[in-house]
Amino acid sequence: MTGIVPHILPTEGPDDTSKLESLIQTGEINPEHIICVLGKTEGNGCVNDFSRGLASMAYQRAIARHTTLSEDEVQQNVLFIMSGGTEGYMTPHVTVFCQEDNNESQSTTKNLAGGIARTRDFEPTEIGRIEQVNRTADAVQTAMERADISNFENVHFVQVKCPLLHSTVFSKHNNTSKSLITTNSYKSMKYSRAASALGVGLGTGELSSAKINQDTINNDWSIYSSVASTSAGVELNHSEVLVLGNSDSSNTEYRIGSSTMQDSLDTDAVTDAITSAGSKLTDSQTTICNTFAKAQAPSDGLIRGRRHVIHDDSDIQSTRHARSVVNSVIGAVTGDPLSYVSGGAEHQGPDGGGPIAVITTTVD
Amino acid sequence: MTGIVPHILPTEGPDDTSKLESLIQTGEINPEHIICVLGKTEGNGCVNDFSRGLASMAYQRAIARHTTLSEDEVQQNVLFIMSGGTEGYMTPHVTVFCQEDNNESQSTTKNLAGGIARTRDFEPTEIGRIEQVNRTADAVQTAMERADISNFENVHFVQVKCPLLHSTVFSKHNNTSKSLITTNSYKSMKYSRAASALGVGLGTGELSSAKINQDTINNDWSIYSSVASTSAGVELNHSEVLVLGNSDSSNTEYRIGSSTMQDSLDTDAVTDAITSAGSKLTDSQTTICNTFAKAQAPSDGLIRGRRHVIHDDSDIQSTRHARSVVNSVIGAVTGDPLSYVSGGAEHQGPDGGGPIAVITTTVD
Amino acid sequence: MTGIVPHILPTEGPDDTSKLESLIQTGEINPEHIICVLGKTEGNGCVNDFSRGLASMAYQRAIARHTTLSEDEVQQNVLFIMSGGTEGYMTPHVTVFCQEDNNESQSTTKNLAGGIARTRDFEPTEIGRIEQVNRTADAVQTAMERADISNFENVHFVQVKCPLLHSTVFSKHNNTSKSLITTNSYKSMKYSRAASALGVGLGTGELSSAKINQDTINNDWSIYSSVASTSAGVELNHSEVLVLGNSDSSNTEYRIGSSTMQDSLDTDAVTDAITSAGSKLTDSQTTICNTFAKAQAPSDGLIRGRRHVIHDDSDIQSTRHARSVVNSVIGAVTGDPLSYVSGGAEHQGPDGGGPIAVITTTVD
Amino acid sequence: MTGIVPHILPTEGPDDTSKLESLIQTGEINPEHIICVLGKTEGNGCVNDFSRGLASMAYQRAIARHTTLSEDEVQQNVLFIMSGGTEGYMTPHVTVFCQEDNNESQSTTKNLAGGIARTRDFEPTEIGRIEQVNRTADAVQTAMERADISNFENVHFVQVKCPLLHSTVFSKHNNTSKSLITTNSYKSMKYSRAASALGVGLGTGELSSAKINQDTINNDWSIYSSVASTSAGVELNHSEVLVLGNSDSSNTEYRIGSSTMQDSLDTDAVTDAITSAGSKLTDSQTTICNTFAKAQAPSDGLIRGRRHVIHDDSDIQSTRHARSVVNSVIGAVTGDPLSYVSGGAEHQGPDGGGPIAVITTTVD
Repeated sequence: MTGIVPHILPTEGPDDTSKLESLIQTGEINPEHIICVLGKTEGNGCVNDFSRGLASMAYQRAIARHTTLSEDEVQQNVLFIMSGGTEGYMTPHVTVFCQEDNNESQSTTKNLAGGIARTRDFEPTEIGRIEQVNRTADAVQTAMERADISNFENVHFVQVKCPLLHSTVFSKHNNTSKSLITTNSYKSMKYSRAASALGVGLGTGELSSAKINQDTINNDWSIYSSVASTSAGVELNHSEVLVLGNSDSSNTEYRIGSSTMQDSLDTDAVTDAITSAGSKLTDSQTTICNTFAKAQAPSDGLIRGRRHVIHDDSDIQSTRHARSVVNSVIGAVTGDPLSYVSGGAEHQGPDGGGPIAVITTTVD
Repeated sequence: MTGIVPHILPTEGPDDTSKLESLIQTGEINPEHIICVLGKTEGNGCVNDFSRGLASMAYQRAIARHTTLSEDEVQQNVLFIMSGGTEGYMTPHVTVFCQEDNNESQSTTKNLAGGIARTRDFEPTEIGRIEQVNRTADAVQTAMERADISNFENVHFVQVKCPLLHSTVFSKHNNTSKSLITTNSYKSMKYSRAASALGVGLGTGELSSAKINQDTINNDWSIYSSVASTSAGVELNHSEVLVLGNSDSSNTEYRIGSSTMQDSLDTDAVTDAITSAGSKLTDSQTTICNTFAKAQAPSDGLIRGRRHVIHDDSDIQSTRHARSVVNSVIGAVTGDPLSYVSGGAEHQGPDGGGPIAVITTTVD
Repeated sequence: MTGIVPHILPTEGPDDTSKLESLIQTGEINPEHIICVLGKTEGNGCVNDFSRGLASMAYQRAIARHTTLSEDEVQQNVLFIMSGGTEGYMTPHVTVFCQEDNNESQSTTKNLAGGIARTRDFEPTEIGRIEQVNRTADAVQTAMERADISNFENVHFVQVKCPLLHSTVFSKHNNTSKSLITTNSYKSMKYSRAASALGVGLGTGELSSAKINQDTINNDWSIYSSVASTSAGVELNHSEVLVLGNSDSSNTEYRIGSSTMQDSLDTDAVTDAITSAGSKLTDSQTTICNTFAKAQAPSDGLIRGRRHVIHDDSDIQSTRHARSVVNSVIGAVTGDPLSYVSGGAEHQGPDGGGPIAVITTTVD
Repeated sequence: MTGIVPHILPTEGPDDTSKLESLIQTGEINPEHIICVLGKTEGNGCVNDFSRGLASMAYQRAIARHTTLSEDEVQQNVLFIMSGGTEGYMTPHVTVFCQEDNNESQSTTKNLAGGIARTRDFEPTEIGRIEQVNRTADAVQTAMERADISNFENVHFVQVKCPLLHSTVFSKHNNTSKSLITTNSYKSMKYSRAASALGVGLGTGELSSAKINQDTINNDWSIYSSVASTSAGVELNHSEVLVLGNSDSSNTEYRIGSSTMQDSLDTDAVTDAITSAGSKLTDSQTTICNTFAKAQAPSDGLIRGRRHVIHDDSDIQSTRHARSVVNSVIGAVTGDPLSYVSGGAEHQGPDGGGPIAVITTTVD
């Protein structure tokens, strides 16, 4: 088989690597083929979410245990993108993406392909600014090349893990904090996700650079990428990119499709994404492997003309509410509480909506 | 018209009585016909949720303003049942139930009917105990009689607002606290809801008294009422009951139906409840006025075989997570974020599930 | 007696007016002399804190019950300033300020005096802007005149309750939201408190208008009032001002003193404030009636050179942490968990610190 | 030098091991002498606190990096006790305890000594039960022997890290969950801490086994150890014990003293503990290295006769409130926000109070 094979592994905790290690031991996963571990971990998904760092460290240790690589080398070779927050009934899990390459004959259909890349470390002053947009775009293009996906049409999901600003940064930049985009850590997550999403739009060719300037970032919601999914985390200073799409080069039994949720209750987008992957919900031979979506509350405080209070809740951050809703709506369609829903969809789909992608497989 | 007419009024805050007052001023609501104001208010739905008390006080003041009754008299004549917690996108709103009685000719169909009743004040030691079950059952029977609903078959929703134990009670009962069912205020909400739900089962005839003893309460989840919806609040010491069903005596244009959600993702139960009300989602002449449901996380930490972390989240109470999910799932079916979903479904449907009722109306 | 008499009344809940009503019934309080009810209520002190509105409504009802005034008239004549948040061990309570005036001979010492005033309703676009500063300054001057306090030296505490921006405002101002100072409700509390505090500085004469412009507000922490205490609440659109100080006109047995906490652990400021009131902690004849302080985390994430994580906690708002600390530090000095500590000290004392005032009385 | 040398290292995050690694590189710390890393990490200190696991994993990796030991061996040889929750201004930090043994001549005074031990893994059904008490007592005795501390009088602080029950345990024990002490994870922390504390009392000889039975655990607050400090964490299934005291065998320049806080505002206990260590706050030659305390809200909802609402706060767990208060009170006395305050003082001092220990050093 050549192309991407995803392994969806529910976990018993952020540091539970037992299912991955079992599959390595049985030979179903060759640990040297792993390019990315994309997880939903059970922290709050906000600034002080240490489940992400814990999971990253645990998976690095686990993979090192089964390869000749040191933990540092594993960290260099593989992307560990952990998105925090499994509110409601979202199943904590990781998707382990393996790059298989068996020089087999090509497929007659486009099948699941993917690639990874990373940026250099960002200066704190670059977060939320054009420099972050441009460096992200470069990494997206590199990842597309590695995936052998040549144009935007075949790209269905681009995950970026990006840094945020936090108290340590603020205290170090005390005298020069004016030059930081914000000195509020939770807000810096929004800026970093926003710049990363515009970088995805630029890198895939969906957006032109003429449309993006400093005023666009975290401000003009009409400019967005329909395939970007960006998460900020305290555990890194650079950004990491995973591009997923379909490619002629791949002959795996997996395909990916996507759509755009217009708002968090948009069940049609869920079925559209499944259709886009060439499958049907009602087809008993189709298995939905995983669904990937971004969630965000509409900025005007209304959904379908009704008031919601997500932005007025000082006890629970808005991203936590939004993740729960979108995972529930996906689960209402698919019947499965396991999906990857990440919060904060700045420039990732229309205001209040967001991208949705589905990986399916068909058993003959 | 004779029977119950419900008015569903979205609110801009717990003390926003403007829509009710407008309808009184235009004559659409006769304030003396109001028997119950059933609201979802935007607090945390837990112990320290003061949005419930604020809403009750505001609606009492508003009704007093438009009648010859004093606020105290309004409080005696009308039920104010405020359920806190509008997590996710749940629309804060109140449903104002009016008892119309125009001696018009009877309907050939059963239509929406309802009645209210209340218990005496409970001793703190009675909360969560058989005495609470029995007194609640008595009140349910009284309310059924007032609604002219003679048997369980025609009962579709019984809302109980019941008291809880809190720090003031604990400090007063310091020497005798052994006799309280619990000295944890959040836990006392569970006990009070549990005893109330069993009281509904007993009062409607769904459950026999032989099945219910002290060990059943908040413990044996196989014993439940399929139409009970119970909420605990800090603002009262007695319980208040609203029974809703269909009756030959009513000729209003509203009907109520119900079903049982087997778990929080059970979309079939939503459509079943609509069908039970004699309507169809796809029928353009049908309007879903409001949907009433209870939400609760399954006690074993699993949903559809998948792990969830609701019970391990020390930052957000499990009822808050559960309400968000059920409201989202109902919204995924109906397309409307406005529904009445209340948390804590002890003995209200199967473990992890809960009752669902729908009021519909058909425009010819 | 002529001057201000404060009654400090611990409460069993935001709507517990029983102690006030007892004192009215025994004649200790003449309800027509009440000018302000200043309370600490047990909500979260943030945007969705409904304990404040509930307490205001309950105290209005209670006072109306014992006077010939309607609730609306009570609301016009008396200030109800409820500050939410009793984190840690802060005792929920209200201080009822009565204006006594018995034409008695004047005192040879300056004693407790006070006055109230209010602004007109603000436009949402004025919140956090110079207009709010100026209107607040006018109200402060009016209140000083009513208190017969002529200069800043004798002013020890100026409490302002001011409005905030919330989702209803945002949805109404959707098209023009650019003109609002922020569309984040929690952040709007900061702006409103900041503008109000500068207004206090301007009104008392502590600050000159030359020092204050739009860029100062919520930005230049070197400009502050040392006697301002400002709280934002969702329940009002105007601002309300209470000025407290010592005046020759007063012959009550109470005096007020004040100091400035340099940071949240500044126990010296607590003893200084007591000394400033002419009392000593070690003097058995001195009673500390109540202590009033503002709390805020230093913006650089450090206290005494140590890192704190208040600004990185996405589960608990920083004001909640800060209130708990300052109340604990005051309690460590006075031995009493009852004090009035309000969060968010923008322009109210130095960055990370805040004003502290103490009302004492001496028994001969 | 022979005996225990403590190194107090503030951290920039749970996984910040930079200060430890610097001290190893400069030779100030011999990594093979480390017996315990006792940390305060910046999570919520409750069930879903992953900062503890992250810190443990990071420190294991750091020590392995500088020794010939593997991470697994480090984990076997050294105790990693991370207590979550740095509410208010508590400085996140670790104390690295080194066991020095240079065969130097003995001291004429008793100085800081310590020892570690661990229990076997517990069965879930043993948590909160007598078996946990007894196994903990055995480990305490072992640790005392290793510290060369022969009697209770010279023991000043016994830290235990113990397991808790969580959703994975509950789902596995589904059919037999009746045999677990509780199926509420947050509550299981209380039971585990309670049993561990009684085990400390038993092991040190402070309590006799005749006084302890199943009904004592988490119930009879009159039975307690005055030197126990126990923390529960999701990351282990056994318990780990650190005993600290003074011993003739030690000639380090450190001493430890202790006292008992009667309630959370008990500043006298802080100064008593310093005195007990042979030091004085006012002595400029004395340095307070670290203060160790337990915090807990009084169960009757009152402190010094005043009501508090810690037990009614459904948004913030009571242990989070209590830690903030006790750290603030200690800081008010010592002037330093850095202390080790851990929540949940079941059977660790009187109800509402807790143990406090201070390590001091004197510079000649």
